[in-house]
Amino acid sequence: MSLDAVLARIDDDLPAATERLLDLLRIPSISTDPAYKADCDRAADWLVRDLSELGVEVSKRPTPGHPMVVGHVGDSGPHLLFYGHYDVQPVDPLDLWDNDPFDPQIEETPKGTVIRGRGSSDDKGQLMTFVEALRAWKNVKGDWPCRITFFLEGEEESGSPSLVPFMKENADELKTDIALICDTGLFESRTPAIVTMLRGLLGEELTITGPSLDLHSGMYGGIAMNPIRVLSQIIASLHDETGRITIPGFYDGVPELSDELEAQWQGLAFNHQKFLEDVGLSEPAGEQDRTPLEMIWSRPTCEVNGIWGGYTGDGFKTVLPSRAHAKISFRLVGTQDPLAIRENFRAMVSEMLPPDCEVSFAPHGASGASGADFSDPMFEAARKALSDEWNIPAAYIGCGGS
Amino acid sequence: MSLDAVLARIDDDLPAATERLLDLLRIPSISTDPAYKADCDRAADWLVRDLSELGVEVSKRPTPGHPMVVGHVGDSGPHLLFYGHYDVQPVDPLDLWDNDPFDPQIEETPKGTVIRGRGSSDDKGQLMTFVEALRAWKNVKGDWPCRITFFLEGEEESGSPSLVPFMKENADELKTDIALICDTGLFESRTPAIVTMLRGLLGEELTITGPSLDLHSGMYGGIAMNPIRVLSQIIASLHDETGRITIPGFYDGVPELSDELEAQWQGLAFNHQKFLEDVGLSEPAGEQDRTPLEMIWSRPTCEVNGIWGGYTGDGFKTVLPSRAHAKISFRLVGTQDPLAIRENFRAMVSEMLPPDCEVSFAPHGASGASGADFSDPMFEAARKALSDEWNIPAAYIGCGGS
Repeated sequence: MSLDAVLARIDDDLPAATERLLDLLRIPSISTDPAYKADCDRAADWLVRDLSELGVEVSKRPTPGHPMVVGHVGDSGPHLLFYGHYDVQPVDPLDLWDNDPFDPQIEETPKGTVIRGRGSSDDKGQLMTFVEALRAWKNVKGDWPCRITFFLEGEEESGSPSLVPFMKENADELKTDIALICDTGLFESRTPAIVTMLRGLLGEELTITGPSLDLHSGMYGGIAMNPIRVLSQIIASLHDETGRITIPGFYDGVPELSDELEAQWQGLAFNHQKFLEDVGLSEPAGEQDRTPLEMIWSRPTCEVNGIWGGYTGDGFKTVLPSRAHAKISFRLVGTQDPLAIRENFRAMVSEMLPPDCEVSFAPHGASGASGADFSDPMFEAARKALSDEWNIPAAYIGCGGS
Repeated sequence: MSLDAVLARIDDDLPAATERLLDLLRIPSISTDPAYKADCDRAADWLVRDLSELGVEVSKRPTPGHPMVVGHVGDSGPHLLFYGHYDVQPVDPLDLWDNDPFDPQIEETPKGTVIRGRGSSDDKGQLMTFVEALRAWKNVKGDWPCRITFFLEGEEESGSPSLVPFMKENADELKTDIALICDTGLFESRTPAIVTMLRGLLGEELTITGPSLDLHSGMYGGIAMNPIRVLSQIIASLHDETGRITIPGFYDGVPELSDELEAQWQGLAFNHQKFLEDVGLSEPAGEQDRTPLEMIWSRPTCEVNGIWGGYTGDGFKTVLPSRAHAKISFRLVGTQDPLAIRENFRAMVSEMLPPDCEVSFAPHGASGASGADFSDPMFEAARKALSDEWNIPAAYIGCGGS
């Protein structure tokens, strides 16, 4: 089979490919810090040069932030978009690094040989596996396997502010049959997998106001409704005793797993017990009769991410606070509608308020879940390729959140 | 009646008495700040000198902190102890003062003539009313009305660390038939009253631990029990729907009001509505069928004074925290036993913990309620004197907390 020559070429080229990756890793392209603006630009230039040498029609495209790198090759067959990002996270605290984060080292570890350096696993390493695969193909076959659009950004680690505007402005150019994204986690180092489901996220901040000012609990204790108590009652009522979320209509659009996915996930032999033990737990706390894997990938959640009110310093102050606050987030699946859930949540909270209490809300994002329709034959082709290469059946998996 | 001459003398002496008080108010005896140690000493010296001139056998007595002023007069009749304090609170923020806090001013205000300066109403003003009353008596009568022990401290505003040790060391000297304490609030500026009940205070801080470290809610949301949720359930369960506190045995030792006190308190015509409106409320939130006055003075409470956990800064972080914390206090009445309540509270919380969660407690004080047995005829004598002077019936009242 003709792929064997390409795979052999990849193996032969490993030392040179590694050198190229190390070269890219040495560029401190920290997108969130303006001090590294020229380095982000340099990383984009590096990619443009490397892809040009490979024969890609590629250019650096300006945005209000860091540039996009966009390239095209091929003129027949299915059209595939490849997304990756060349920017990295800040490196502090520096004293937790054994080496300069931008002087990457190849090290032998109990997990095997690793490259230790900022960006090696997020996302320059993944990005270059795709480039190197194509390089080998091109060198062996002299042409491209299909039409491919490269779409590499430099703002992923700082919230991708230019991404959607750029995609809208260049919608025709970026429209393809399918997109490959190399920026989710590895499920488990020995099991190949394709992420086809990503949970959505809805955030709400709420402030309960009771009395109009902070009071002395010796004077008003018992008499003035304490907003911490009201907030606690609201939070306590968001789940029933079986772990289900009580907001009206919350489970509208939550699908049950298909038999096919259920079988695949069971086949992963995920170690639920170790997953819990790693963080000091022995029993899953969520909905009854759901496995942890199912809960992470395919069930919605409601979590309090922060709560505060009254005196929180050392010692004691017998204040009866005027206000209490919480930040609450929901992970969404299937076709759950974030805006409908926001509305139902706010209505439920408002209905629970006792006399003299008020609530105000602040929204923090509202994105529905993403799911790929993997009945498309390209998914099975990809899964087969992964399974063949790893010699372990690849699975379609979910991702709890990005 | 011979008291008239004494009262007339007090009126005649008002300008000189006011000058003496202003002189004492000018001493910045801030007990909590070591920079004012010499000033605290100076205030004690001032009192020793003033009482000596009046003929009291008085001395400044050292403690590990600021000195006590102890004096004795009289050799027959009932033995009365008079307690007051010469230290004051810090004065910051200074920009909220119209004048130098230690340059006291006599001002006409909508409330009448007032002395504006630090310590004028806590506690130098009250302290000097007692001294001036005795001065007038002595000057008119040439002798003392009864045996009197003066006991004036300089650490009340910084927690009175030397008070109990000093009282224990000098128990015989300080033992009297009755004590007058001039350091509670005025119930209402037109109504004389004697505080005979002071609620006790029990403080508890609790920390709920769930997972052994902070987690990403995209990975562990729904699966790992969120300690904020556990804490909220505990707080929500501390009151039932009628406002009663649910801790087992909590109401043991809570007395019902006597008919006499109930009648006196109703006679005060306390404006419950205004009391609530002043802080933006319209309905009392505590136990049903209790008036706010009854709740403040004679009913126990359970309040959350502080709560915190997870991310509380700007924006959003989808953390699932390992820990959540609360500070909870109880106001106690009658013969409620703080240590039994602490034990029952801790047992109740521990029983509510779901699997994998732990709780730790830190105590913050435990003092039972104080109550005077006002069947002693001296109480009625004092109440009659107050009623006569004000020409309004004086009441025995409570105090929600000090």
